[in-house]
Amino acid sequence: MKKHNFNAGPSILPQSTIENTAKAILDFDGIGLSIMEISHRSKEFQAVMDEATALFKELLAISEGYSVLFLGGGASMQFAMVPFNLFEKKAAYLNTGTWASKALKEAKLFGEVIEVASSKEANFNYIPKQYTIPSDADYFHITTNNTIFGTELHEDIDSPVPLVADMSSDIFSRPIDVSKYALIYGGAQKNLAPAGLAFVIVKDSVLGKVSRAIPTMLDYRTHIKEGSMFNTPPVVPVYAALQTLKWMKELGGISVLEKINKEKAALLYDEIDRNKLFKGTAAIEDRSLMNICFVMNDEYKSLEEEFGKFAAAKGLIGIKGHRSVGGFRASTYNALPKASVIALIDAMKEFEKAH
Amino acid sequence: MKKHNFNAGPSILPQSTIENTAKAILDFDGIGLSIMEISHRSKEFQAVMDEATALFKELLAISEGYSVLFLGGGASMQFAMVPFNLFEKKAAYLNTGTWASKALKEAKLFGEVIEVASSKEANFNYIPKQYTIPSDADYFHITTNNTIFGTELHEDIDSPVPLVADMSSDIFSRPIDVSKYALIYGGAQKNLAPAGLAFVIVKDSVLGKVSRAIPTMLDYRTHIKEGSMFNTPPVVPVYAALQTLKWMKELGGISVLEKINKEKAALLYDEIDRNKLFKGTAAIEDRSLMNICFVMNDEYKSLEEEFGKFAAAKGLIGIKGHRSVGGFRASTYNALPKASVIALIDAMKEFEKAH
Ligand SMILES: Cc1ncc(COP(=O)(O)O)c(C=O)c1O
Ligand SMILES: Cc1ncc(COP(=O)(O)O)c(C=O)c1O
Ligand SMILES: [Mg+2]
Ligand SMILES: [Mg+2]
Ligand SMILES: [Mg+2]
Ligand SMILES: [Mg+2]
Repeated sequence: MKKHNFNAGPSILPQSTIENTAKAILDFDGIGLSIMEISHRSKEFQAVMDEATALFKELLAISEGYSVLFLGGGASMQFAMVPFNLFEKKAAYLNTGTWASKALKEAKLFGEVIEVASSKEANFNYIPKQYTIPSDADYFHITTNNTIFGTELHEDIDSPVPLVADMSSDIFSRPIDVSKYALIYGGAQKNLAPAGLAFVIVKDSVLGKVSRAIPTMLDYRTHIKEGSMFNTPPVVPVYAALQTLKWMKELGGISVLEKINKEKAALLYDEIDRNKLFKGTAAIEDRSLMNICFVMNDEYKSLEEEFGKFAAAKGLIGIKGHRSVGGFRASTYNALPKASVIALIDAMKEFEKAH
Repeated sequence: MKKHNFNAGPSILPQSTIENTAKAILDFDGIGLSIMEISHRSKEFQAVMDEATALFKELLAISEGYSVLFLGGGASMQFAMVPFNLFEKKAAYLNTGTWASKALKEAKLFGEVIEVASSKEANFNYIPKQYTIPSDADYFHITTNNTIFGTELHEDIDSPVPLVADMSSDIFSRPIDVSKYALIYGGAQKNLAPAGLAFVIVKDSVLGKVSRAIPTMLDYRTHIKEGSMFNTPPVVPVYAALQTLKWMKELGGISVLEKINKEKAALLYDEIDRNKLFKGTAAIEDRSLMNICFVMNDEYKSLEEEFGKFAAAKGLIGIKGHRSVGGFRASTYNALPKASVIALIDAMKEFEKAH
């Protein structure tokens, strides 16, 4: 049976990423060795790193003055690396969910943190819009897509201080204006690559301003200077990232993906709204294009488990909602085909008819 | 042509590790999805993590009271994580090479570091034996195998203070007495897995004694508590590590590997000594079983480049020495077959005959 993979992350990747990575593990570029067994300093792997970095910049139209880094450790390590590199006296955070809260908590180890706004009181079902960013903050941190709660900031906001964004779960889902940001980071394991890799886009000029001594591996300047090769990089995830970047380029780039993502999300949200059994959990204007959260309407609550099984039997994988929200979450990342969304909608319709 | 892979790291892995990893990337355990596309919280991946951790402990006979962790970031991140977790007022380091020097340099960010001894004056061609470990140091750090210079500590030493060892390039090459160590760490990319993974063996009771606030991701206790799954782990490298651990177990365990490693190294060192063209660079008693460094004797120095080409033409890959030593380095990690060592020896003999 065909599987429809709605996992929230690690999550579906393009078939070409999967196949080319498996191939390179057996024999990399016909050199008779696995990509896992060659030096990261070999010209073959250096070419992979260079091409991945260049294509990453090209797809997001990243201009001069910004560096793109591929690092180990995941997005959670960035929760600490950001303050190590940017926090001098005070930082401001927008609290829009579990990940934003974790990022904020980490920053508190470094000094005064201003939570400019939070939607915690409403179980993070919306993104606060009315808040003031302190003009004396070293930076302002946002989480553009809240993977767990299914809310998303659809615009690049303005900030009077350097803007830092966790884009773990919406990078490459829409064109962004990188020039509005000082730093963008994320775990690669949603729209880019398998787990074990983080990406960082950083404006070079914001670095070198803090007075602390930064441990070498936690200093972005180390990795900029060495082109993400200060130490042995996560070779397989970087190779897989390159395959996904190529796939995005072949598809026509990020604006094509945005169009498809909007279409997929609209189809599913429309069905959630129409279907008598279901309702969405996020404020309509903040609905995420990547993580679509929905629950059973109160009068059908008892059918929740049954729908879960019904969907699983149809090959719809990974739609159980995070325990913080309950119900269902369908992650509709770039690589998820429209056919999978339609399969889910068909299941929702069929289940409605039966009840 | 068959390739003989003498790369220093990333380096040769067992064929079963390569094939099983490629297979799991195409379809993991027959579930119809790639191992790259499923949740790390799925029961399928949890089983991989649990089995890898258990097998790691079993193969090294690690007793209760120690935790085994799989982390992102590589060994270089451990250069900082060790002092974050263990450095209170003073630490002692033995300086036996480039990596030891880097570890020592990182510790200096945390306070007073005593270099108990160094072989730098002799281009790190031996391991100092006469030194005093300050009894008031928080820990004593050693590098058991010096990948670049081809020296190795063949015994587990005694230390009056907690002993910390970088075993990046000799882990699993011989049985070790883990109870003599407070902490052992390394990059996985030599004897275990592809790059992008570090292993840590830590005695639980040495943690929690420093007064600093440790960033969450840099605190070993975070990862102990969450079984290496505090955040998304490097899924593919962990899966590959499990394959290598299984391979070692099937072979009969670490003592069998040690026997083979000794045999391979003896064959090659014997040829280096016998052959009029070559000589070893490391002090005989400290010769590494994993990284065998040799140069041309003075009167044959001009043949160096020619031998490099001669060897490459025979499929002998990765034998160029590190620039700090020059000449040649044959890395003879666990997965390197004896046949590859013999192929190298044959090439050395043939080249000698011709000159
Ligand atoms: C928005 C966001 N930030 C951070 C993280 C943490 O990522 P990692 O597991 O790579 O540390 C996640 C993981 O899902 C996420 O969705
Ligand atoms: C002994 C030793 N320590 C540390 C390192 C650094 O490892 P990584 O590249 O994973 O940071 C190496 C790399 O070769 C090594 O051989
Ligand atoms: Mg969230
Ligand atoms: Mg409805
Ligand atoms: Mg060394
Ligand atoms: Mg000789």
